[in-house]
Amino acid sequence: MKIQYTPIGVMHCEIRDPAEAPRFYTISDIGGVIEVYDEYAPGLQGLEQNDHIMVVFHFHLSEGQDLLQRRRGNGELQGVFNLCSPRRPNSIGVSVLQLEKIEGTNLFVKNVDLVDNTPILDIKPYKSPGIDTV
Amino acid sequence: MKIQYTPIGVMHCEIRDPAEAPRFYTISDIGGVIEVYDEYAPGLQGLEQNDHIMVVFHFHLSEGQDLLQRRRGNGELQGVFNLCSPRRPNSIGVSVLQLEKIEGTNLFVKNVDLVDNTPILDIKPYKSPGIDTV
Repeated sequence: MKIQYTPIGVMHCEIRDPAEAPRFYTISDIGGVIEVYDEYAPGLQGLEQNDHIMVVFHFHLSEGQDLLQRRRGNGELQGVFNLCSPRRPNSIGVSVLQLEKIEGTNLFVKNVDLVDNTPILDIKPYKSPGIDTV
Repeated sequence: MKIQYTPIGVMHCEIRDPAEAPRFYTISDIGGVIEVYDEYAPGLQGLEQNDHIMVVFHFHLSEGQDLLQRRRGNGELQGVFNLCSPRRPNSIGVSVLQLEKIEGTNLFVKNVDLVDNTPILDIKPYKSPGIDTV
C-alpha cells in the first residue's frame, strides 16, 4: 500500500543545515514563517485562535532510514520510533510550534526545529492530552 | 512534488465507523492495539519509556477534502487546518495516545480516536511544548 501526499506550504527560517537544527521544538527559540500556498488559504479560517499548532512536514533532506540509531547528545542506541531523527521508515516530522500571528497566508511561528524550505504537509490545532478538550 | 509513504503498522480497536469515533483523543477512553509490522520491530527499542506516544496515521476512509467545514458538535464553519476532520488536503492524522504496555510488536494504547484498520505511518515519543525537554 502506497500513500501519496502533496505539500500545502513551505517553511522559511534561518536553519539551513539539519546539523544546526535544535534537537526538538521544546528547546528551540528560533522563529520562522510557514507560507501556506494560496489555494489553501480558506483552510486557515479560525486557526488564529490557537496558541500552538501541530505542523506535519516531510524531512526532505533525509536519505534512507535506520531502525536503530544513536541519540544525538548522549549517543544512546535507541529504536527510531523512540527518536525524532529524520532517518525514519516514513520521513514524516511533527512539531508543535507556538503561533504568534497570521498575516494573509503567512504563519509566524516560534520554537522552530525545521530546516528552511521544508515541505509542509498539514497543519492542525494542538491540544495537550489530558488538559484541553475539543 | 509528490511524497510517498508506506504503512509501518495497523490499528486494531472497536471503532468500526468514523461516525462512532470520539471527536478527539483528549476525550476518548477507548483502548486498542497498534500492531507494528515485524520488519520494523527493532525500531521500538526504548519506546516503553514514554507515557504518551505521537501516532501519525492515514485517514484511509476519507474521500476528498473541504477547505471550509462545519465543526462536529457546534456546527461552526472553520478552516480545515483548524479542525481534525479526515477530509483534508493530505489525509494525515496525528493522535497523542497513552502507552500502557508493549508486548512484542503490539502497542497497547488508550485514548484511541482512530478507526479499526487505520494504516499507521509513524510513531514518535511525545513531548509537551514548554514542559518536557529532549
